[in-house]
Amino acid sequence: MVVPRLIERKRDGGVLTGDEWRELIAHYATDDVPDYQMAALAMAVFFRGLSPEELGALTGAMLDSGSRLPRTPGGAMRVDKHSTGGVGDKTSLILAPLLAACGVAVPMMSGRGLGHTGGTLDKLEAIPGFTTRMPLDRAAHQLDTLGVVMFGQTEEIVPADRRLYALRDVTGTVESIPLITASIMSKKLAEQLDALVLDVKVGSGAFMPALEDARTLARTMIGVGEQAGCRTVALLTAMDRPLGRAAGNALEVAESIQALRGEGTGDLLEVTLELGAEMLLLANETMTRPQAITTLKQAIRSGAALEKFREVIRWQGGDPAVVDDLAVLPTAPVIRDVLAGHSGRMPPLPPRALGELIIALGGGRRVAADNVDPAVGLELIPRAGQRVEGGEVIAIVHARTDADADAAESSLRRAIDTAWQDRAEPLPLIVERITASETTPWNEVR
Amino acid sequence: MVVPRLIERKRDGGVLTGDEWRELIAHYATDDVPDYQMAALAMAVFFRGLSPEELGALTGAMLDSGSRLPRTPGGAMRVDKHSTGGVGDKTSLILAPLLAACGVAVPMMSGRGLGHTGGTLDKLEAIPGFTTRMPLDRAAHQLDTLGVVMFGQTEEIVPADRRLYALRDVTGTVESIPLITASIMSKKLAEQLDALVLDVKVGSGAFMPALEDARTLARTMIGVGEQAGCRTVALLTAMDRPLGRAAGNALEVAESIQALRGEGTGDLLEVTLELGAEMLLLANETMTRPQAITTLKQAIRSGAALEKFREVIRWQGGDPAVVDDLAVLPTAPVIRDVLAGHSGRMPPLPPRALGELIIALGGGRRVAADNVDPAVGLELIPRAGQRVEGGEVIAIVHARTDADADAAESSLRRAIDTAWQDRAEPLPLIVERITASETTPWNEVR
Repeated sequence: MVVPRLIERKRDGGVLTGDEWRELIAHYATDDVPDYQMAALAMAVFFRGLSPEELGALTGAMLDSGSRLPRTPGGAMRVDKHSTGGVGDKTSLILAPLLAACGVAVPMMSGRGLGHTGGTLDKLEAIPGFTTRMPLDRAAHQLDTLGVVMFGQTEEIVPADRRLYALRDVTGTVESIPLITASIMSKKLAEQLDALVLDVKVGSGAFMPALEDARTLARTMIGVGEQAGCRTVALLTAMDRPLGRAAGNALEVAESIQALRGEGTGDLLEVTLELGAEMLLLANETMTRPQAITTLKQAIRSGAALEKFREVIRWQGGDPAVVDDLAVLPTAPVIRDVLAGHSGRMPPLPPRALGELIIALGGGRRVAADNVDPAVGLELIPRAGQRVEGGEVIAIVHARTDADADAAESSLRRAIDTAWQDRAEPLPLIVERITASETTPWNEVR
Repeated sequence: MVVPRLIERKRDGGVLTGDEWRELIAHYATDDVPDYQMAALAMAVFFRGLSPEELGALTGAMLDSGSRLPRTPGGAMRVDKHSTGGVGDKTSLILAPLLAACGVAVPMMSGRGLGHTGGTLDKLEAIPGFTTRMPLDRAAHQLDTLGVVMFGQTEEIVPADRRLYALRDVTGTVESIPLITASIMSKKLAEQLDALVLDVKVGSGAFMPALEDARTLARTMIGVGEQAGCRTVALLTAMDRPLGRAAGNALEVAESIQALRGEGTGDLLEVTLELGAEMLLLANETMTRPQAITTLKQAIRSGAALEKFREVIRWQGGDPAVVDDLAVLPTAPVIRDVLAGHSGRMPPLPPRALGELIIALGGGRRVAADNVDPAVGLELIPRAGQRVEGGEVIAIVHARTDADADAAESSLRRAIDTAWQDRAEPLPLIVERITASETTPWNEVR
């Protein structure tokens, strides 16, 4: 293998064999292929893409660079959900215990927030004592015993991806659909899943804002999943505004617990139930969509889902009292109502601006090394499209200091004013459903 | 300057400012921009190109990374010739003393051979004792005193290019016209020239085989030269067959000395005189082309050019007796005539195959660290297009061992057979002349 010749072949629109991809990644993992060659290759892939066979080989090679979550034969269907990220997206926190309560094994291996998007691990760690770090065998044991585990990617999982992702981050090669796909899917396949539901966000706050790009990303990920024997379905959902009411780690845990208690409403509940239904349908081929929705609602109504979350918290060192008493969660010293300046229909608020506002409050990360303040954040009271009257509370800022609250309030007012002027029509909450064989507009699914 | 943002901008088809290029190269030279970022940027440039302003800024920034060949005001016009490289291309060895004999100052800073193409430094060093390594001030002193110096790029000349070129070589980013241009022109501009003649090769043995690519390369280099105040003209010349009769370092020195003695003929003499005329015309605006050719021929006929070469050799530690006695040059122990297998018109022989054959004989480099045997090589007796009879000597192999000669002979036969089957029409020896303002087919120039 002469690496410059491989780079040139890809650069000139050619195809590398599966063996070449495997050898490249194996040598990259041992430092025999240096970063500068991988950076040039990643840029060539940005421009030339990968064939489905190349992408499968690359994903497999990355997967093979590390360990997999152990799995003993038999047992429950193992199904996960992955979201491409956004603001206020806390469906993972609800879905993991909810699906476990319905008999599906959910190995929810998640990441941290970065930039304007939040991360499941940060949210869970807002629960006092909760740990997301554990060795793979312990995660597997909890999964087998409790039916659900919510943990962070360990060092042994896809080390080649950790290295490649860090390199892409500093070489302008993040925004490549095949490289994104290999990164996400190698980690998901390391969970040894039977099936996977993808929540691919679309709209201004999404990683891939344009519908066509989001669709391509979804189809590419589905292709890799199915090729690897993991049944994969995607919903394209709206991220032209935040999902649900709360953004900020402890506030999102509170909103998730409320949903598990049966107090959930609106867009968050709808997206959660539809993603959950897709998971159930993949785990249980004989079920119909209405049966799946009913099963999920019943697991909430019965308290089984909340009970499962209590167990998760207990198993993972957190204070389980939180499911009964949200006051266990950290709270911010300054809580500030923001009142509507005038009357009108609430516009969709741009998630990137709100994400930046939460970073400014200390609740997010600009760079991976930043610390996160779990208590701060934002509650948004009216939903996009709802009419508000001047003087009505439209948001609540949770801040560490008065100065932070002042800054957040004025950022929020600017964001609202801009959004009001833009008069953008919100996207449908769920845009479409994509499987290996078809893409269906959501209104034809239901 | 946030480097990933700059890479992304170039990747997405944008333009970097002059300051951004200068800062990038300055930081690359001090290692603050790592190789992996430069590799990704180089690949983005491969796909997106550079605007003329960007290319001027990049070339200038690379030039500024090191020293220039000192120049005191006044004195003779300083003119150089640069060839994009080929097999048998020894015009530099003839032109440097020839133009100096005509009163032009020629700072011939050259490189070594790599792959199938030869290098001027390797050829000169076939002369016993000849050194091409010298500090810049000594090179400048020789240039001012003798009117010509033939030396290798020193450590102080464009160090950023040395580093960037080594990186491009291993990251599949060599074949980028703007990066090639910045590499070549930064080194040529470091000579502080008044004018430059480019010999851009075209045809299968050229670095850029396709006419359109060679033309683009020529025009791009001319643009950078003129932008920097160095008048620049290019001839596109044939490299679909070797130039002249000899290929191999000592053999090419012998052919060059013969040309300086007035024994030169054919394609080598023609290309040399035309390139030399371009150099003289740039140095002397009132001269006509026929006057330039006459001046050059006169400098050969009078012995002035040969005398100048003798002085160059003396100044640079070589044995000046070589100009009178070619037996001073190293000779190979095995000299083998290759006879024509049948009669016919001699086809143009592919330079890459012959270059590979010379590498196999030990006379070239596969990698930069290879040692070169000066004595070995090839003489090709009939020119392309000339009729040969079966049994006639068509080539002479100079080899270190009989086994090498056997291998070379059979490689040569294969190359000839293939070429004979291909029946390719040779390119015109000089294809066209390109200036900043126009491109003229060569038959309209003369």
